[in-house]
Parts: sequence; C-alpha cells; structure tokens
Amino acid sequence: MHDVAELAGVSIKTVSNVVNGYPHIRPITRAKVEDAIAELGYQVNISARNLRQGRTGMIGLAVPELSLPYFAELADSVIRAAEAVGLTVLIEQTGAVRARELEVLSGQRRHLTDGLVFSPLSLGPEDTASFAVDFPMVLLGERVFGAPADHVTMNNVEAARAATQHLIDLGRRRIAVIGAHEGEEMGSATLRVRGYQQALAAAGLQVDPALIGEAGLWHRSTGAEAMRRMLDSGVEVDAVFALNDALALGALHVLHARRVAVPEQIAVIGFDDIDDGAYSSPTLSTVSPGREEIARTAVDLLVARIAGANDALPYQQVVSDYSIVVRESTAGAGSTTLAVDLAGSAGSRTGAL
Amino acid sequence: MHDVAELAGVSIKTVSNVVNGYPHIRPITRAKVEDAIAELGYQVNISARNLRQGRTGMIGLAVPELSLPYFAELADSVIRAAEAVGLTVLIEQTGAVRARELEVLSGQRRHLTDGLVFSPLSLGPEDTASFAVDFPMVLLGERVFGAPADHVTMNNVEAARAATQHLIDLGRRRIAVIGAHEGEEMGSATLRVRGYQQALAAAGLQVDPALIGEAGLWHRSTGAEAMRRMLDSGVEVDAVFALNDALALGALHVLHARRVAVPEQIAVIGFDDIDDGAYSSPTLSTVSPGREEIARTAVDLLVARIAGANDALPYQQVVSDYSIVVRESTAGAGSTTLAVDLAGSAGSRTGAL
Repeated sequence: MHDVAELAGVSIKTVSNVVNGYPHIRPITRAKVEDAIAELGYQVNISARNLRQGRTGMIGLAVPELSLPYFAELADSVIRAAEAVGLTVLIEQTGAVRARELEVLSGQRRHLTDGLVFSPLSLGPEDTASFAVDFPMVLLGERVFGAPADHVTMNNVEAARAATQHLIDLGRRRIAVIGAHEGEEMGSATLRVRGYQQALAAAGLQVDPALIGEAGLWHRSTGAEAMRRMLDSGVEVDAVFALNDALALGALHVLHARRVAVPEQIAVIGFDDIDDGAYSSPTLSTVSPGREEIARTAVDLLVARIAGANDALPYQQVVSDYSIVVRESTAGAGSTTLAVDLAGSAGSRTGAL
Repeated sequence: MHDVAELAGVSIKTVSNVVNGYPHIRPITRAKVEDAIAELGYQVNISARNLRQGRTGMIGLAVPELSLPYFAELADSVIRAAEAVGLTVLIEQTGAVRARELEVLSGQRRHLTDGLVFSPLSLGPEDTASFAVDFPMVLLGERVFGAPADHVTMNNVEAARAATQHLIDLGRRRIAVIGAHEGEEMGSATLRVRGYQQALAAAGLQVDPALIGEAGLWHRSTGAEAMRRMLDSGVEVDAVFALNDALALGALHVLHARRVAVPEQIAVIGFDDIDDGAYSSPTLSTVSPGREEIARTAVDLLVARIAGANDALPYQQVVSDYSIVVRESTAGAGSTTLAVDLAGSAGSRTGAL
C-alpha cells in the first residue's frame, strides 16, 4: 500500500479510499492509484483487511442435507434472517457424517466467518465436550443438550404429543409411528416418540410395539418403505404419525397406491410444515415447528455473541413455539380452509442451561 | 512467526509444525511454542496462508433459492461431485436479486474459494460483459449465452419438444403451458415454450395463446394460481406442460381440488425430475435434465480451470443429456413401473463457443 501511494504520488489514505470503493474520489486520482496498483501487481488482500477489522460480515450455516426439504427451507429462513441484519450466509453440507461434523467444530474454516449456526445430526450426547469451541456458535436440533453454546430447539415432546392427541381426538385408536430410531440415545426421533407415548398413556391407550415403524434417514423413500412394511405386517392401523413430512409424503404415496382412503381408513399427520405438504393430494396435516422463529432467534443470538453483547450471560436455550396445522390428511376433503390450532401458544421459553 | 520461534527457542520450522497440527512433536516443544504464541498474541493467519499457497480447497456455488427443490437438489449434487475430488462447497443464495448476482461476479468473496459455480436468474443477455471475471467460474442455466466462461446447460428446446410430443402421442390436442414469461428475452421459460411451439407445429397443431399460462417465479403456489386462472377462463384443455415440477405439483393440487381426473381429463407433465414428483399422487411425469451430470461436469470444468489445465482451450459449452420420465400423471394409475424414454441419448455435446 505504501509503495502504491508513493508511485501514485498520493497519500496512503487515498489509496485505501480507492481500494475500498469510496465515492467522491476525483477520476484522475483514481486512475493514478489504479495504474500504480496495476504496475506493482498489488492485490487487494481482503482476507487480511477482514482479519484486521476482526469481522467478515459472514456467518456459516452447517446442515446435514440440503436435499431434505426441511433443511433447505431452514437454510432459506436463516439466509433471510441474516440478510435482515446485513450478514451473508455461507452454507456447508455435512452429509450427517461424523468426521465432517467434527471438522465443522474444529474451526478450520472459522476465519471465513464471524460465527456459526450448526445443526448436527451425527454427533450426539457423548460429544458434548467437542462443542466447547472458541468462536461464536449457535446450536440447532436435538442431538446435543447442555453443550457450552446458545441453543435453539423446538418443543419436540409436547408438539409430538399434540399431533398424536389430534389423531386421538378424531377417534383413532390404532395410531402408528413412522420414523422411529431404535437405540437412539437422544434426537428428534426419540423425543417425538416420547411425546407420542405420553399422548397414548394420557388417553389410556396401550403402546403396541408393532405400531412403531423404524426408518433410518427421514426421506420420502424410507417413509414409503416403512409404510409398506407396516401394511404388509397385517397389523391394524387407523392413523399414522410420521415423524417428519418427508416420511409422511412417502407414506401417503404408498397408501394411495394401495387404494387406502386417507383420512377415512388411515389418517396421516407429519411434522415440519414443509411447502410440499400444502400441495400434496390429500394435503398434509402437520406440526409447524416455528422454522422462521428458529432461524431468526438463532441469528439474533449469534449476532449478540459476535458483538460480545452476551459475554456476561450464560448460554441460552430457546424453545420455539409450535402449532398443529390441520389439512385434508386428517380432516378430510371437505377441509378447504386450514385450521391452525396454536397448541404452543404459551410462547417461547428462554432459560439459562 | 519469527518472534514466536525466538521466544520459544525453537526453529521457525517447528513453530510451523505446531501451528499446522503436525503429529510427532514432543509435548514439551509444543507447550513452549503455544506459550510463546499466547504471550505474543500471535494469530494463525489461515487466510494469509491460503493466499500464499494460492488455494483454499473450497469452491463457491451461487444459486437463486434453496427453497426451490431444483436448486436444493442441484446444490446437493454439486456438493457430492466436489467431495469426490476433495473440495468443499460454500453456498450462497442470491434470491435472484440483480444486485446480489452482480456482487457474486464482483469477486468480493473470491478470496474464500478457488472458483465459482454460478447459476444466475436475474442477470440476462445484456449483462454478458459482467461475466468477464478474473477468477475461475463455470456458468449454469439459460440466462446468458456466449459469456466468457465455461457453461453447462441443458437442452431446453429439445427436451420441451419431447415433453410436448409425449402429450401429443397420447392423443392430446389442447395442450396448455404453465410458467411462461412474456417478454423474456432469454431464459428457461422462453426456450421451453419454444420447444412446445415446435412440437405443436410439427404435429400440425395451432398454438393457441389462450393456452399459454404465465407464472413469475416457478413455485407450487404460482403453478396453482396459473392452473386456477386457466380453468376459470373456460378454455378447453386436455393436457398441461408445466415448465418445472414445482409448477406441475401446484397444478396437480388444483386439479385434485376441482375433481379433474389426471390423466383421464387432463394429463400433466413437468420438468426437472425433483424427488417430490416420484411420490406425489398421482406420480408426476417429467423431464429429467441430467442434474447429476450437470453438477459433475460443472465441477470437472471448474477444477480444470483452477488447475490451469484448460488455459489453452476456448471456453466450453456442455449440453447435458435429458430423458422423459413417464409416470401416472400422463400414463395413468396402471403405470406402476417407470418407463424412461432416453430421448436425449445422442449423448452430451461439447463445443467451443
């Protein structure tokens, strides 16, 4: 920069102004500086400048899989929330691979961004210590609780209980679950199955293990397979609580192919409120987990940590509101308007860990 | 680094080994170096190191909207293709906003990555000059042709002609289009409508302007609206070619709500082959544009440009294969297996611009 200033015959300040694109610089001055830069092969070292300023204006978002609609829509929401406060989001896909998720925590790429929003799927409770990182981070999801980081989560147990209760209220008694993860210590599946069991218990219904369908990754294809297996087993079913919407859409596909009337013979509810569910045939009842709120809260918490505004505060855990969205797959074809039951209207709860 | 070495009483090489996390360093040596770093407040300047090495091991991917399934799935494919060659992908969402797309080209963030895969949606033919950037870039999509960059595209006109021909082969004569962009100079809509018109002309059918439905962004919601408007207009329709699958799924939603039998009364075909279409009711016939091939080719071209391997070659334009995927929305409920017509089996065509 000094060499450029000397060659151009201007001050270092002027070189800086030209390089940083300030307005109100005389064209002749700009030309001199630009010529000097070209002559010296000077490269604007943006990285170095950012490091000097201590900020990049960017935050990272690490999610398992963008081809899962929930994460694609979550990424979209985080990007919009970040944009509202002038931040750009760089997205990384971990593929839910353990080594990649650990790499995210190792901070190898932290110099690119001011902080990170991280939704792990492979790391679990046994990895809590790995979350003690030295850069601003906000955690999403249900794999790890009690990590030394701000955490935005949804009320999985209560929301799942409300979804199951909705099916019970319709008179259903043989309610199947699709998407269980047997042996999982902690995660969305475990928590949602717990809510399902609580709802059955509260209604005096037995939990029948034959009604709990496993599915590894929560895709349409695995939901279709689980639904097929359940029908083939011959077990009596009059409703399905699919642990996410992709599973539910896969289940609807199989029910349609087998000529099973939805909701007359089998009512179906999902979880996530992805866009697809509003356009499927029948349209899909679901749990809206407050995706926009989750994204906005995560960005707000991250911004506060980046600014050091929360340095004196303990790590926050914020639980987002949820609501039950009633559509045709439980209410029938007559339900042309959407009934939204604000089951989670008690408001978000925030608390120190 | 020199100061750290002096203070720790070790060589610069040893400091470098510690900082870079090399194994086989004696704990006492590591401790000395770490103490010296702490004392001097030395920051590992990874950005500077990357700049020195000239590589970041990362490539950028800029797409309009991740909440559009096509782009979410494209991102997933690019990430997998990049992973196969050891590269990490950082994704940026432009929102199809002109200023953001120009920002991508300005290279403000080029120091983060070794190169860029860019799918513009707002910039058009009048912006071709802006694509003359000084970093490795591969262009996707149909908004700009002839830009000074490698370009991977799909055969929109021929694929759309094949999709329309499929409907004509079923005996349909009143074939509507959903998703047209009136006044668009260049883009997927323009090219796909052109293919539609060519197929009609070849079959001796008139193009009826009343059958061309406009839709701005190609979402389920806009597809539903366009379908509703078309039905309300009272125009006779026996088939719909929706210019992407999201539009088609929106149209199917409206046809289902209005009790129009698909495909008996109106056959529907989409474009993109997104995962949703394989699970909708009825399942959606579509054009598979070779998304995996597009992603793999784009990454391969970018890697070659980054390595300088193609420096002597003119910019490449690669056109991916396409195929027609026949499902229930055109073939009826009996079509339990998918018939895949390799209409584009002539192979990819590569050529200098």
